Amino acid sequence: MDLESKLSEIGKNLRSSLIRELLKYASVPGSISFGGGVPDPETFPRHELAEIAKEVIEKDYKYTLQYNTTEGDDELAKQMVKLLEKAYGITGIERENLLFTTGSQQALDLIARIFLDKDSICIAEFPVYLGAASAFRINFPKFETIPLQDDGMDVDYLEKKLKELDEKGLVNQVKFIYTVPTFHNPAGVTMSLEKRKRLIELAEKYDILILEDDPYGMLRFEGENLPSLYKLAGPDRVVLLNTFSKILTPGLRLGIIIGRADIVRKATLAKQAADLCSPSLNQRIAARYLERYDLFEQLKPGIELYRKKKNTMIKALEENFSDIPGAKWVNPQGGLFVWMTLPEGFDTMDMFEIAKEKKIYYIPGQAFTVDDSVSTSMRLSFCLPPEEKIIEGVKRLKEVVVEYGKKKGLI
Amino acid sequence: MDLESKLSEIGKNLRSSLIRELLKYASVPGSISFGGGVPDPETFPRHELAEIAKEVIEKDYKYTLQYNTTEGDDELAKQMVKLLEKAYGITGIERENLLFTTGSQQALDLIARIFLDKDSICIAEFPVYLGAASAFRINFPKFETIPLQDDGMDVDYLEKKLKELDEKGLVNQVKFIYTVPTFHNPAGVTMSLEKRKRLIELAEKYDILILEDDPYGMLRFEGENLPSLYKLAGPDRVVLLNTFSKILTPGLRLGIIIGRADIVRKATLAKQAADLCSPSLNQRIAARYLERYDLFEQLKPGIELYRKKKNTMIKALEENFSDIPGAKWVNPQGGLFVWMTLPEGFDTMDMFEIAKEKKIYYIPGQAFTVDDSVSTSMRLSFCLPPEEKIIEGVKRLKEVVVEYGKKKGLI
Repeated sequence: MDLESKLSEIGKNLRSSLIRELLKYASVPGSISFGGGVPDPETFPRHELAEIAKEVIEKDYKYTLQYNTTEGDDELAKQMVKLLEKAYGITGIERENLLFTTGSQQALDLIARIFLDKDSICIAEFPVYLGAASAFRINFPKFETIPLQDDGMDVDYLEKKLKELDEKGLVNQVKFIYTVPTFHNPAGVTMSLEKRKRLIELAEKYDILILEDDPYGMLRFEGENLPSLYKLAGPDRVVLLNTFSKILTPGLRLGIIIGRADIVRKATLAKQAADLCSPSLNQRIAARYLERYDLFEQLKPGIELYRKKKNTMIKALEENFSDIPGAKWVNPQGGLFVWMTLPEGFDTMDMFEIAKEKKIYYIPGQAFTVDDSVSTSMRLSFCLPPEEKIIEGVKRLKEVVVEYGKKKGLI
Repeated sequence: MDLESKLSEIGKNLRSSLIRELLKYASVPGSISFGGGVPDPETFPRHELAEIAKEVIEKDYKYTLQYNTTEGDDELAKQMVKLLEKAYGITGIERENLLFTTGSQQALDLIARIFLDKDSICIAEFPVYLGAASAFRINFPKFETIPLQDDGMDVDYLEKKLKELDEKGLVNQVKFIYTVPTFHNPAGVTMSLEKRKRLIELAEKYDILILEDDPYGMLRFEGENLPSLYKLAGPDRVVLLNTFSKILTPGLRLGIIIGRADIVRKATLAKQAADLCSPSLNQRIAARYLERYDLFEQLKPGIELYRKKKNTMIKALEENFSDIPGAKWVNPQGGLFVWMTLPEGFDTMDMFEIAKEKKIYYIPGQAFTVDDSVSTSMRLSFCLPPEEKIIEGVKRLKEVVVEYGKKKGLI
């Protein structure tokens, strides 16, 4: 059978996530990876989770080993309502405002399915979280990308773009503005309060939904908490995506859609067709964990660990790259990523061949574009390697940059 | 914000699975449900799973609590290869032929995504498993349905239909033939060996893929095992879907796609966009279970339990419905369902109102059509209620049928 002739348009167009492909190299012995946005397993409360898992299988087996509702575990929902209030000051959440998903990737996929058609326009940041881009792309929308600045999305540019779309009669086709306002993946930047307010004003003006993705909000090392877009504008304007992957463990694959009841209902129906329900077991483990332990206390050592690793990476970058004019990097206040940009002419995807030889891995900026365009940037994740490996890895990276730069006559 | 005007075509067309909606009634106190295809929790090896869960979180936390590859757990893959050989005599399976999914619902969804466009034709059985229909429908294909007989799909009808499509120049648009050949959900019937061979011949002749869904194949009470379509025709012609939901526990949400490497690869790429990966924890729990315990031995008491319950239901149907001319039911050799058909004029969806009053729940046949057409049939699941409830439930069902029949002047 000739597969190609049988595939759907989606099937024909599917391509591998660059990250998932590049991560395969990271297991080569002797390699140092700044690649994956993978939490340090030492931050997982494994003893507590192990006990809880045993207990909820033994005692609640009629629930934990059985099918779940599509909406997910009501006990986890109760805990989530408390967590949202404690972590973000978000109140007024009812059961019907919550849907638990198989990781936040599924949340992105479900939202994309219920909103995006071929003639839809999807506004996203540049660079963009590539998991979101791949979920959106499945539906073949048009993308409009808004550049990021040190204090988040360039809202002036957004305003200009929306005005343009409005003048062309296209603004109704904009289904949502997708943003990671806090500790952006990959760019590390955080949207200022002023910009948050302007973004909401623009969304109100043109009646556009904001899709706020916040996997890292609770991982702040320094600086002051800023209110989430959802907190500022409410469910009529914002759908908030959250996940347990970065604050508890990715192994449970638990994401959450928080939004207006009718939107959550549509996402729930889409989930019925997509996977019926997420595992009862995983949801109940998380529920019991939140019930018994103070997540904020548990997070503290992990945040401290990430803060140290981040500082180590920034220091190493300063030590190694100050003699490369034009090389710069974002110093993030939280999250897992440093975004580094090399001088004009560098192509971090092309440079990856040398990185492979030197066994140092990063994610080329090209992975975070909607159209695979060449990028001078790269994402460096500091969360997984120990500090001495971060120092050694940045040294190797310098060698890679120098070798590539010389080869191409750039430095 | 007016949601309706913002939704995609998919979003606008989503509707709730009738089963999921009807199952909500089943929790009313005093009710007896023949509704869900939900295994009896007493068949779950909870003590073993509880121990394993604790152990794999404690010891393998770097794996079980971390992100997984999209392809899934290699250790589970090894166990699966052994299981496929032992259970079905299927050999020659490599790692690249397997993809683990979030339940078999996701397997259906991924296959639908990579094959179905709006102008695609999807051949399915009538009645059809409604989870499959809802996954396929998302992509708006055209359906051609083939009636089921006591020995499975009416292959003469299929032949006629394929010839017709070929004459109209449409046979190339047929993307696959979806079938549950063994212990069909909802119809309870099993495709004979002769029909299996003819189905494969037809699929070969017209170069069409067969999508074989086999959640119940290992739950045989009586009669002889028949070779799976995959075993008979191989991966060039058949994609086989399997699940741990009915043989271990649905709570883990573990499904499997078994097929040609290039098809599995495309499904893997679709899964990257859909949910990145299924939970590592759940996959490793299943892997360890299969490694340590003999699944066939473990299944025996459960199969014996289902056999007894099925016989109880069949006996109760004979006792209660022999005086209703035209009422008939399938006596299945395995699986979880009895398919009952009432005389002409009955509408089991309409009748459900009376069933609700009498607190006896079934799934109306309408749920298993691709076009919501009225049905005289209903699915009765015997797997969850204890035997005395089955007897009492069938009595109530008789009352429902008599009351409805009299009201409508049908009996």
